[in-house]
Amino acid sequence: MVDGVLRALNADPQLHLLLVGPPSVAATVLDALTEADRRRCRERTALKVVAMADAPLRAMRADTTIRSSLVALAAGEAAAVVSAGSSGATVTAAVLELGRLDGVRRPALAASIPAIADPVLLLDVGASVETNVATLSSHALLGADHARRLGLHKPRVGLLSVGREPGKGDRARRAAESALAELPIDFVGLVEGDDVCLGDRADVIVTDGFTGNVLLKGIEGAYALARGVSERSEGAPQGAPGGSVLARGVSERSEGAPQGAPENTAPAHSGLRRVGVPGGAPRAAMLLGVPGIVVVCHGAADADDLAAAIALAAVTVRARR
Amino acid sequence: MVDGVLRALNADPQLHLLLVGPPSVAATVLDALTEADRRRCRERTALKVVAMADAPLRAMRADTTIRSSLVALAAGEAAAVVSAGSSGATVTAAVLELGRLDGVRRPALAASIPAIADPVLLLDVGASVETNVATLSSHALLGADHARRLGLHKPRVGLLSVGREPGKGDRARRAAESALAELPIDFVGLVEGDDVCLGDRADVIVTDGFTGNVLLKGIEGAYALARGVSERSEGAPQGAPGGSVLARGVSERSEGAPQGAPENTAPAHSGLRRVGVPGGAPRAAMLLGVPGIVVVCHGAADADDLAAAIALAAVTVRARR
Repeated sequence: MVDGVLRALNADPQLHLLLVGPPSVAATVLDALTEADRRRCRERTALKVVAMADAPLRAMRADTTIRSSLVALAAGEAAAVVSAGSSGATVTAAVLELGRLDGVRRPALAASIPAIADPVLLLDVGASVETNVATLSSHALLGADHARRLGLHKPRVGLLSVGREPGKGDRARRAAESALAELPIDFVGLVEGDDVCLGDRADVIVTDGFTGNVLLKGIEGAYALARGVSERSEGAPQGAPGGSVLARGVSERSEGAPQGAPENTAPAHSGLRRVGVPGGAPRAAMLLGVPGIVVVCHGAADADDLAAAIALAAVTVRARR
Repeated sequence: MVDGVLRALNADPQLHLLLVGPPSVAATVLDALTEADRRRCRERTALKVVAMADAPLRAMRADTTIRSSLVALAAGEAAAVVSAGSSGATVTAAVLELGRLDGVRRPALAASIPAIADPVLLLDVGASVETNVATLSSHALLGADHARRLGLHKPRVGLLSVGREPGKGDRARRAAESALAELPIDFVGLVEGDDVCLGDRADVIVTDGFTGNVLLKGIEGAYALARGVSERSEGAPQGAPGGSVLARGVSERSEGAPQGAPENTAPAHSGLRRVGVPGGAPRAAMLLGVPGIVVVCHGAADADDLAAAIALAAVTVRARR
């Protein structure tokens, strides 16, 4: 957490941070900073943490870090919240403090997935786990709106299913397929799991939070295996030199993320492209459907992930101004 | 299809094939064979094909290739069926001709996924798309039984969900979690999407056919992107030599599959390990819950995939003898 904050401050000279948590953690950050950088940080004390195994409702307690950070957001003391805690708790606290956008019953966590063609916005990746046609329709509208704010003129929206032919899927998907066709979005029909990483059929891919969460973590696992194969090839007698170039290549892209100057490119869409971890799977998701910018990190986020999540939040704040 | 058949025959001198389909396709295969290899092939004519967009019930027509191949299996003319056609149609035809094992309402397609630790058997990857506790319990029993037949003494069975802590998941998962704990299997609790490629928490991972299909294709897409990044690194100025070693490394493993002598290792478990395509995601799944060996190929299967699927069928036939 401390390293991630330091990286984020180094990468973005315009960034100001409100550190919400135990004073001892904030002190560790502040001690590591120059006098000038220290002036970019403020503190807000919160002592209790919502653990992964806790019920999300624990986040309703005002003394938790997550609730406290959302109180600060709602009060205008911060422009965005970045949480590396329990995503369920973060969603609960966000709805409690910020409310929901008109017409949204269930907010959605949207992750931007690096793809061979353009990056894909996948939602929901875990804000809620049950689904129905209304929820999938709401996700489609939220995803298309977010993609437009990120600079895509006419984002193509696909519905995740088990085949591309019309009618493929379970009952919820078959009903949602016709509902999404009626919405004011560019609905391209059903897409499949591989379209998330291929990226040539849809810019926004809509699914329920159960399937989206499993898929996102599955992609992450596949990259972990790909790196493993690559490392093994390097060690093996038949391996060509530079066997771990994939791991290095992806790692370079990812490490470049928080350090890149957002001014050089369309800021918001580059933000969408830049979030990634060594291995290529994103470890941060944007909460859509609440009136405020909330970024949720992967529970296993490391310093790079956290810095990338903070960069995503900052880029989004600037894009929405 | 023709190339896949030729590769399978070359790789396995003990293999005999019954070619089910239009005589013109069979003739192309036979023309490419030596006199000796030709004696290992027989023909069974079927002219109609079930297209991907067709309703699976079309497979009930006796003149389709898939129905005809299952009639041959039921009649003992073949020891296993390998289909590269519509998986829904294959499942429908298999249930029609073979029936179901006692206590199984919904057969499951099980795919063996290469993982960092041991390979993982993931089911269902698309035999049915709706789910409930009974179906998930049946999948758990089928998966554990199949893993035991493949030589695993005490396969660890996990239930796919959105977190590892007890109680995480949707209603179906929360109910199934306690049901699976009562079964005569080594139930290790909830696992996540990345566990499929990590492979250190469970040998068998149980989910519904919708989630499993999306996850399997998502992993496939991630490998496609990993290869793409690797190839780009090779071309880029900063790329080290041998940038595509991942693609080559995985490809070598896969190409080795049908050519490897199954006798050298525990035949069945090696079969589980060997199925894979360039990129690492399996493109063949075993239908569990029917009294017969049925292997379903990915709709986009190429010659290597088909040869690997035929090898998987042959290995399974030998293991069950």
